[in-house]
Amino acid sequence: MKPIPYSAEILTVGNEIVTGLVADTNSGVITRRLDSLGISVTRHVSVGDDKEEIAEALKQALERVDCVILTGGLGPTHDDITKQVLCRFFNSGLVTDAEVKRRIDSIFQSRGIETPQAAYTQAEVPEKATILHNAQGTAPGLLFEKNGKRVYSLPGVPLEAEHLLETYIVPHLENLSTVKVQHRILKTTGSPESVLWEEIGPVSPFEKYVKVASLPSLLGVRIRFTASGKDSKETTAQLDAAEKLLREKIDHHIFAVDDETLEGNIGDLLKKKKGTLAVAESCTGGLIGHRLTNVSGSSEYFLEGAATYSNEAKQIRLGVDPALIEAHGAVSEEVATAMAEGIRQKSGSDFGLAVTGIAGPTGGTPDKPVGLTFIAVTGPQGTRCEQFRFHQDRVRNKERAAQAALNLLRLYLSK
Amino acid sequence: MKPIPYSAEILTVGNEIVTGLVADTNSGVITRRLDSLGISVTRHVSVGDDKEEIAEALKQALERVDCVILTGGLGPTHDDITKQVLCRFFNSGLVTDAEVKRRIDSIFQSRGIETPQAAYTQAEVPEKATILHNAQGTAPGLLFEKNGKRVYSLPGVPLEAEHLLETYIVPHLENLSTVKVQHRILKTTGSPESVLWEEIGPVSPFEKYVKVASLPSLLGVRIRFTASGKDSKETTAQLDAAEKLLREKIDHHIFAVDDETLEGNIGDLLKKKKGTLAVAESCTGGLIGHRLTNVSGSSEYFLEGAATYSNEAKQIRLGVDPALIEAHGAVSEEVATAMAEGIRQKSGSDFGLAVTGIAGPTGGTPDKPVGLTFIAVTGPQGTRCEQFRFHQDRVRNKERAAQAALNLLRLYLSK
Repeated sequence: MKPIPYSAEILTVGNEIVTGLVADTNSGVITRRLDSLGISVTRHVSVGDDKEEIAEALKQALERVDCVILTGGLGPTHDDITKQVLCRFFNSGLVTDAEVKRRIDSIFQSRGIETPQAAYTQAEVPEKATILHNAQGTAPGLLFEKNGKRVYSLPGVPLEAEHLLETYIVPHLENLSTVKVQHRILKTTGSPESVLWEEIGPVSPFEKYVKVASLPSLLGVRIRFTASGKDSKETTAQLDAAEKLLREKIDHHIFAVDDETLEGNIGDLLKKKKGTLAVAESCTGGLIGHRLTNVSGSSEYFLEGAATYSNEAKQIRLGVDPALIEAHGAVSEEVATAMAEGIRQKSGSDFGLAVTGIAGPTGGTPDKPVGLTFIAVTGPQGTRCEQFRFHQDRVRNKERAAQAALNLLRLYLSK
Repeated sequence: MKPIPYSAEILTVGNEIVTGLVADTNSGVITRRLDSLGISVTRHVSVGDDKEEIAEALKQALERVDCVILTGGLGPTHDDITKQVLCRFFNSGLVTDAEVKRRIDSIFQSRGIETPQAAYTQAEVPEKATILHNAQGTAPGLLFEKNGKRVYSLPGVPLEAEHLLETYIVPHLENLSTVKVQHRILKTTGSPESVLWEEIGPVSPFEKYVKVASLPSLLGVRIRFTASGKDSKETTAQLDAAEKLLREKIDHHIFAVDDETLEGNIGDLLKKKKGTLAVAESCTGGLIGHRLTNVSGSSEYFLEGAATYSNEAKQIRLGVDPALIEAHGAVSEEVATAMAEGIRQKSGSDFGLAVTGIAGPTGGTPDKPVGLTFIAVTGPQGTRCEQFRFHQDRVRNKERAAQAALNLLRLYLSK
């Protein structure tokens, strides 16, 4: 018999969430943590500060899952009503908790302020709840248990919610699931989702080992494998088998695994080769340099970036012959190549990377439409230049151009 | 009698959302847009790629509100099941839509690729649905109408969801609500939230006109005013009155309104002055050039950026005296000033901006800790240099340094 995982839903309370003013980040954080314990999170729900909406959402969630985690609505102001809703829901009165009161006083004392009267409302807690003491703020978390199900209520402040999650919820729940779940993400770029899957072929061989999800985004397609088994040895073996299958089909498209980044892996390749890099950017305006320098330790190999926006800058900074720009235009294979070779020579780097393109929305012509981009990479093995055509708006064309440039560099360095 | 607004819920479909792999940004974007039409969004629900879960969530939502907007699960792969669920829910068969098929072919043609067979599944559409043609991708949106209620289904890719929202949903719904709600966001940077509100004073004078929300983030505090009334003339007058009050207190901190950006407003200032700009970046690595060139038309005033990461590059590209670096260190007021003046002179620009700092996590010393940053701006009115101390991780320190640099430039240009 397949073991049934313990299941949970996240219920977020707050007008700021359902009016789109603030993004709900707690649900993602809590889910990833529960997921790592083998707990299956099946739904996220966000409702406003409305007693009926909260109670209805809670009731329905408890009909579906073993555990509901509420966040938000525990503050000291008039629109924080989660505690009232829970008291009514579990038919519980309020009592003053001396320990919570003491902690509230001590927080205000440490700030050199007398405790405002409003803060003491947070020491009034439902008598049927277990108190989850909050070392990061004045609102304690609450746990209700009924008919074998659990309802946790946490403050909405991310720091406090995470603190109570780690301090109470994880220790409570970590041994409840009999299933170990593990993910692996293989990140690809350079091939659209449907073309990529033609290369991969049918999904069924993978499903012998794992569940497969395909996640397209502007900068590439991520493929996520999910394995479940009795322990991490079993799940790791399943993930390894699936990854091996995938690499047999599309290894060259995979630029990173899990938390790795394209720029981080380029850094590792450069460090292994003891090579240095300089970048000449036109349409990307500095984005490639920005991404490369997001990597800690990039000063070991990144010498400089030149965002040569004007033709004069291309000439003076990179030594691009004005006659070349005159003959072929600034957005051309010839100029991209001259920019890459120019920045390499001027900076004395081992490798040079250059991008020139028309980001748009203006500047396109029938011959050279918006999105046309040339990317050149140069180094000890010679110069390679490729042409791309992007179809997005200005900012997204820049992002795609930077991604394509870093990927071309990765492929050059991997050879 | 208070008019009752048209109501909606957002239902997001995707294992990637409920497993916390991808943050749901669509719900916020859609909510903010509907909210601006006076439509009340009362709930966000996210479920996995599970037919029963999707159908149950849809059924319950339709019991509560007038309109449900689904996003996700419309792609061409095996785990995209929203269309199937909707067909069953509305008891509809599938038909091939010739126009959708033609559009799919034309998208692949423009990429120079033959249409893969899998892509054609997206031309099969529910016969009971109205097709929302998608100019940004291969998956069309769908609209079902039943018993006076509406169900929209949109692809999960944010660009495509936003495109269909603007093209179809907004025109469909914009006259359905009898309440006009209007927001205005005033964006500030350079002052922490609690200090900013000490300058602003009590919130009550604003509440005569609008509701007020204060939204702190890494790069500044946004203040959002919400007015509601019978028409946009009434709401605009309320917003204008509140904005006037706020500008009397903190005008110098406000760098943009609503969709305006800091870099866009800098562009306008430069165009008005007919001035040109060049930027020398050390720790920000190209981020400032990237942000400035996100503005369409920036080639009019942005000449070049130099991401001079190594000391050699600072010397060769900007003419910074090595003795200055030797005496004061690369992260110093003297070097920041020399970088700004150097890039201005070497590029022949009217204004020069430079940043040097320690992004971290390594490279800090007791004297010069991680986060220490010097920013200099130079131009016809002389040179100004300011010291900053940021306390975040590497990427966030870069973002804060770029924001502070652009803000210093804005203040210099505004004089």
